[in-house]
Order: sequence, then C-alpha cells, then structure tokens
Amino acid sequence: MIERVAIVGTGLLGTSVGLALRAAGFKGSIIGWNRSAEGAQIAFKSGAIDSIASDPISAAREADVTILSVPVYATLDLMAQVTMHIGGDHLVTDVGSTKLQITKAGTQYFNQVGCAAFLPGHPMAGKERGGAELGDANLFRGAAWLFTDAPGAVRTQRGGELVLSWREWVVAMGSKVIDLDAARHDELVAWVSHLPQFVATALSSVLAERVGDAPELKDVGGRALREMTRLGASPFSMWRDIAHTNTDAIAAALEALEQRLAHIRENLRTPELRDEFEKANRFRRE
Amino acid sequence: MIERVAIVGTGLLGTSVGLALRAAGFKGSIIGWNRSAEGAQIAFKSGAIDSIASDPISAAREADVTILSVPVYATLDLMAQVTMHIGGDHLVTDVGSTKLQITKAGTQYFNQVGCAAFLPGHPMAGKERGGAELGDANLFRGAAWLFTDAPGAVRTQRGGELVLSWREWVVAMGSKVIDLDAARHDELVAWVSHLPQFVATALSSVLAERVGDAPELKDVGGRALREMTRLGASPFSMWRDIAHTNTDAIAAALEALEQRLAHIRENLRTPELRDEFEKANRFRRE
Repeated sequence: MIERVAIVGTGLLGTSVGLALRAAGFKGSIIGWNRSAEGAQIAFKSGAIDSIASDPISAAREADVTILSVPVYATLDLMAQVTMHIGGDHLVTDVGSTKLQITKAGTQYFNQVGCAAFLPGHPMAGKERGGAELGDANLFRGAAWLFTDAPGAVRTQRGGELVLSWREWVVAMGSKVIDLDAARHDELVAWVSHLPQFVATALSSVLAERVGDAPELKDVGGRALREMTRLGASPFSMWRDIAHTNTDAIAAALEALEQRLAHIRENLRTPELRDEFEKANRFRRE
Repeated sequence: MIERVAIVGTGLLGTSVGLALRAAGFKGSIIGWNRSAEGAQIAFKSGAIDSIASDPISAAREADVTILSVPVYATLDLMAQVTMHIGGDHLVTDVGSTKLQITKAGTQYFNQVGCAAFLPGHPMAGKERGGAELGDANLFRGAAWLFTDAPGAVRTQRGGELVLSWREWVVAMGSKVIDLDAARHDELVAWVSHLPQFVATALSSVLAERVGDAPELKDVGGRALREMTRLGASPFSMWRDIAHTNTDAIAAALEALEQRLAHIRENLRTPELRDEFEKANRFRRE
C-alpha cells in the first residue's frame, strides 16, 4: 500500500523511523531530507534512508507518506508549505511533542477536498540527546504512539487507505497505537512527559550552581542522581517549542509540584511526610 | 585480621554486605541479627550470614567487627546499647544515610579509653525497595563508600588495626573509599541524594493525585516517567530518619529547587529558559 516514504528531518526520531521501517520489512523507497547535510549523510549511511532530497517539498512530492520529524514550530511551518504541493493521494504525518496546534493546522491545511490527508502523531519515545547517529531501529518497541486525529477529516479513498496503512506500520515498528483527543493529549503529556523534563532540568541546573564544583560530586552521586538528572542533557531547541505550545498546562503542572515540594519541606518532621511517601508508593505500585 | 563479623540488620544493605564479603573472599564467620526473624532466615538461606544471633548485643560480643545496618535512629539506639557490652578489641561501624549525629554519638559512646572503636560509614548504594531478598553481592561495586571518622579518636592498637582492615574489605567489595567531614557529608548528600529522593516522592505523589486514574497513563508514560518516579517506591521507614536528622540541609535544597521551578514556570516563553537548559546541559557534561 505505501510504496514511497519521505522522512523530513533525519534527527534521532526520523532516522529511527527509517531504520524501524526497514527492520519491520518495509520494501519501498525512503527518501530523506535534513536541515544539516551532515545529518542526512549519517542517516543515509546508516540505511535509514536510501536517497537524499534537495528540499522538503520535493521529498514530499515523491512520497505516498511524508513523516515530518522536526520540532513543533518547524512542523507547523512545513505543514503550511507542503500542503500547497501535494494532493489527495498523499498522507502527511508527524511526530511532534504537542498536538493541539498541529492538529488544528491539520484541519486548516489538510483533510479537505483536494488536499492531502494529515494524521497528527506522537511516538512516546526519545533519548536525552538527539542526532541521526543515535538512530535506533528498536526505539519505538514497546512505546505508545499517540494519534490525535480530528473528527470530520475529508479524505480521498487513497488518503484514508494511507492512514490505515501507516497505523499498521506503526504497530509493525513495535508501538502500541493509542487515539486521544488533541487537547487531552497536551494536558496528559504536560504531567507525564513535560513535567518530568522540566523537573530534571531544574534539578540539574540548581545542582550545577550549588555543588557543580564539589570535588567529591562525581564519586558521591549514585544511580539515583544519574537517573534524576539524565534528562538534564535534553536540548533546548526541542523543548523551547514544547514550552511555547503547551505553556498553560506545563505551568499548572509545575505549580502543583512546587506546592507539593513546599508541603514536604514544611513537614519534614511531621506525620504528613508519611502520607506523601504512601501516595508516592501507591503511584509506583499501580 | 578480621575473623568474625556481625551484621546487625539483615535488610538490603546488611544482606548485601554479607554476600559481598563472601564474594570478596572473606573466610571468617558472619553472624546476623534482624528485627524480623523472616529477614534473618532469608539472609541465612542466601549465604550472607552463617548463623543467626538471638539479639544485637550477643551478635556484637561474638564479633571483631559489627556492622549496624539499620535506619539512623535505630543505629543511634544500638550504639548506646552495644558499647556497654564490648571493649577496645572491637570495631563497630554503620551504613547510616546521615552522619552528623551518628559521628557525634561515635565520639560520645566509642573511641575512648576502654571503649570499642567506631567508624561512621555510608555506602552510596541501595535500591528503591528494601529487604534481604534483594541482597546483592555486587551492590557496592563502583559505588562510593563514605567515611566520616571524627578527629581525636582514642583506639587500642587492635581497634586501629580493625579500622584499617575494614576499610580494605570495603575496597575489596568494589567500593571507592572517600573520607569526608561529617557536616560536609550531610550537606553534600542533602543535594545529591536526599533532594533527588524528595523530588521523586513529590513528583510521584502529585502524579498519583492528578493523573493516577487516567486510563492511558500506563501506556503513555515512557522511560522518562519511569526513571523520574522510580524512587517514589522508597520506604518511609528509612527516609523518616533521614528527614529528621538532616532537616535544615534538606529544607534548604528543597527551597532552592522550588524557586528554580518557579523561575522556569515564569519563563516558559522567555530566553531565560535557554539559560536553564544550558546550565542543566553543563551539569550533565561535567
């Protein structure tokens, strides 16, 4: 059904999609494009893509399915550009970390008579560092792949078939497909993905200032410290767009955590501390 | 040099010490005691101890070196009791997570004419769950083992030799020995060990309340969520004593993090956010 795939943005996610498609048995062509030529070369040499496009538009025009795998604002920009050059026999999908704006843009620019189909997607997979060199055919194995398709999409028969086929390839790459409303998606990931990231960033930043120069630091910090600060290495370039496009939900989650930390701080010597540990224990058991 | 070891408290750490000593080639006797008979039985069956004592005092009296491996307050209680029953040819050491009060008690109850030697110790190793059944001969491999010996200790020649010998066994178990002042220890671990724990507890607790019943939760949360909440499973019984014996340093660290989170929350759409990511990136690179 899908014979030609375009991967626009061969960073960690884009390269991993190419490798995972091949590992799952995809026999068609995979054309790739990347803002930096070096990243495209690495993806090409890894086998994630088998040709390099000169620009995103020509990549999309050659493909049945185009995967936009760039940060959120770049995704929104590319959606507006790409839709003008392809028709109803194409599907565009994405891997952006916030979905409300992208899903709205999907309704605005796609999913109408004469337009390509658009399927907003978000694999819950990644690493704390990016780049084609970290591409991994198993990145999506066991992970959720969220879709936030808006109701009322107008698609050609071919467009609808490509949507179904892409969902099947996502399953073949080892992911579990989950359908969510876009607003609910952004609310939920604010808690389970964005809050953990900003906590790790805040913890790493405050530790850098307070004990970053302690000579014993490297030796004394154990697995707990490494784990709790691993995401401190995450790149601003990706998280800026997430902070800008999910600001209110992230701010609400951060404020709730600030209040919880203050509550713990004020109760280090009272029985309230036990309640917090019990709630935390329960969260981990469930 | 050391022929008979007593392990008082055969939980995760005590059982692991017994297993690690055996793995490192210790040929002497290891007697164990545990508050719950079941924990002692598990340690015995695992080979971590080769006999079970009826009480902590008789275990210590039979041994050259007694390792107190119980929470901080229980350690302080046992120090006061045990010292009355053993003399200068004994060494008592511990694995408590805060060291200022224990080190002071060591000066008060031990390290004087006619008293046993006491060496305050803290292996930076553990798991988010306790119990003899999780005992692990490799738990201390690659970990720091901190000692906060107070200056001016009065020890018999035999006591001094046991201190040196125990330090060698700690190295043989795979740990890196680091000597620290006790006050500096408690300050440093407030940042690199206690703060990460209380953050994980707060995050797990707040998530339990806000999204604990979301049907998509289990699937959507990825590695980042699992890692950042793993320590949420930690038992209150151990952390209560830490919170009580290092309150001021922990409160200061928590307050610094609360302020940092608020700063990030207020700057989700300003260039300040980049600075926080860059500081966090630097902490992880160093």
